[in-house]
Amino acid sequence: MSTSPPPPTPPTTPHYPILDHIRWVGDAQTGYLSLLDQTQLPLQQTHLACRDVESVWQAIKRLSVRGAPAIGIAAAFGCVIAAQNQDFLNGANYLATSRPTAVNLFWAIDLMKQCAASATDPTSLNQLLLNEAQAIHQEDRAACRAIGTHALKLLRKLTNDNLKLLTHCNAGALATGGIGTATAPMYLAAEQNLPLKVYADETRPLLQGARLTAYELQSANIDVTLLTDSMAAMLMQQNKITAVITGSDRIAANGDVANKIGTYNVAILAKYHKIPFIVAAPTSTFDLQTPTGQQIPIEQRSPEEITEAFGKRTAPPNIQTYSPAFDITPANLVTAIITERGTISPISTNTIANHLA
Amino acid sequence: MSTSPPPPTPPTTPHYPILDHIRWVGDAQTGYLSLLDQTQLPLQQTHLACRDVESVWQAIKRLSVRGAPAIGIAAAFGCVIAAQNQDFLNGANYLATSRPTAVNLFWAIDLMKQCAASATDPTSLNQLLLNEAQAIHQEDRAACRAIGTHALKLLRKLTNDNLKLLTHCNAGALATGGIGTATAPMYLAAEQNLPLKVYADETRPLLQGARLTAYELQSANIDVTLLTDSMAAMLMQQNKITAVITGSDRIAANGDVANKIGTYNVAILAKYHKIPFIVAAPTSTFDLQTPTGQQIPIEQRSPEEITEAFGKRTAPPNIQTYSPAFDITPANLVTAIITERGTISPISTNTIANHLA
Repeated sequence: MSTSPPPPTPPTTPHYPILDHIRWVGDAQTGYLSLLDQTQLPLQQTHLACRDVESVWQAIKRLSVRGAPAIGIAAAFGCVIAAQNQDFLNGANYLATSRPTAVNLFWAIDLMKQCAASATDPTSLNQLLLNEAQAIHQEDRAACRAIGTHALKLLRKLTNDNLKLLTHCNAGALATGGIGTATAPMYLAAEQNLPLKVYADETRPLLQGARLTAYELQSANIDVTLLTDSMAAMLMQQNKITAVITGSDRIAANGDVANKIGTYNVAILAKYHKIPFIVAAPTSTFDLQTPTGQQIPIEQRSPEEITEAFGKRTAPPNIQTYSPAFDITPANLVTAIITERGTISPISTNTIANHLA
Repeated sequence: MSTSPPPPTPPTTPHYPILDHIRWVGDAQTGYLSLLDQTQLPLQQTHLACRDVESVWQAIKRLSVRGAPAIGIAAAFGCVIAAQNQDFLNGANYLATSRPTAVNLFWAIDLMKQCAASATDPTSLNQLLLNEAQAIHQEDRAACRAIGTHALKLLRKLTNDNLKLLTHCNAGALATGGIGTATAPMYLAAEQNLPLKVYADETRPLLQGARLTAYELQSANIDVTLLTDSMAAMLMQQNKITAVITGSDRIAANGDVANKIGTYNVAILAKYHKIPFIVAAPTSTFDLQTPTGQQIPIEQRSPEEITEAFGKRTAPPNIQTYSPAFDITPANLVTAIITERGTISPISTNTIANHLA
């Protein structure tokens, strides 16, 4: 992986200055994947030029690109690079080992494998795979807007147009190929000039809320306030939150939701304060092979993300830590799940199966 | 305020290596207050030599000494310094402006004022005040052990001797003149070789859990595991916590508890998982002049504690923040309050008034 100057920025609407964080640059035979290195945000905007599969794997593993839909899109482009190097199948399988929880990763790689099976020669293979990756990216962009439309409609109804929304982690533009999932109704509300106030949990340990959500919403001129994760309860006590909306990394067949550690915490707070708790995710996030949240593998992260996440040691040497990357919010705490197809509520194995049928 | 080599360490039991964090060094006329600078923990053990009132005020304001009982003790010694400088009353009143929430500060300063009223000449005044400050310190040390005894008895009963305790912030030795309030039953369980596992919330924004609680319990060879605040819910979901115990900065007449921001969050999590939530505090923490938690003033801290707490900017420039230092846990979420006199449960204006009578 090398760093390079950012590629020429394509025209974007003024509201979405960071939509080019995943881009394919060049043609199918010699092009490369450009990724905004999210580990350097919000202070530095560095773009990584990924020209081999290892670079893409590392970018996913080290969270330079993160967010379930964005991981899927990056892996799809990574499969094109694998094909350029005449090693499609090994490369695709290797990319699938980068992170265990987000199901979109496996979903995107499966689509790329199906596409590869239809190719007749290496040159057409590369072009077919690039087309497929671009299609996955484009479909995600469309899914984000559709999610935003459905979510905004539901949120306006549930809050009586008093949009004071809390979100956790970053299910934003930076996590997807479009305007995000949890953030999509925020961007659409801003487009429509609706009154809107957003509160962003900073989301320890890696501060995706502070570094990414606060950054991208502020860039879009949306009224956003940053807080530490444990302050959300007091905001709710003071009636400053009318709904909570988050993304998801995997949703089990019964509606249990895997998402960034701390989501289950927020869901309990919302329940206690009788505030709607909404999950926004594309249908590719559902894993019907996983009956309940208990079967979803939870990635454990390294102790250093807790003890020296800020570049400075903030805990005693050799301290024991507990560091799951995700938690499981049981379906009974979720008011509704929003996908590009619409709203699932109430949530059950049946209503989910019907929604996806 | 100047830094100096640590004063000679008095003999301590092997279990409590950090009990000398507040010490008067020298005599009443020329002595000074030595404070372990807790902002430098856990990596550096720097002692501040406070020889004027401003140094003590700054040490409290900047959290070099913190924790409601410890603030009271430090302010009491600060009053001796004020008297050395022939400006007792102004000094005492100034010290009372250092922080607004912890009622022990005002309680200790009031005791010092009552003491001063009984002095006949400046020389005897200084000695009387030093005796009073030492008495406040000594009483707090005894109160901590008494709290520990009552708390351990209750916790053993409530958990069936399965002591897997979660705590938030630092209501430890470093917050008091003794073995802490919330930590007191932990130290006593360790003395008695009872099986014990402690989980410490890191406690954003200032990481008192990571920097102080993890440090002091590890120093005492207690099994302690550090987590980010939002991970506590998942631990409870996995039945890894059998009780929660915290300290308090002020308790209203009806039992509403002001404590470090995030405490209300943990109390809701405990309620949801049907886990006892215990508050441990000396009787000096009660403020019967304050009818409910709504009347307790909540200190707002600076945005930088969220956006660059660790010497590195982790949020975009000019981001709005929400940064209360404390929150209010309503009495109905508190299973019991433990003081040096025993246990209050159930909690009501009446049971509290009877306990304090």
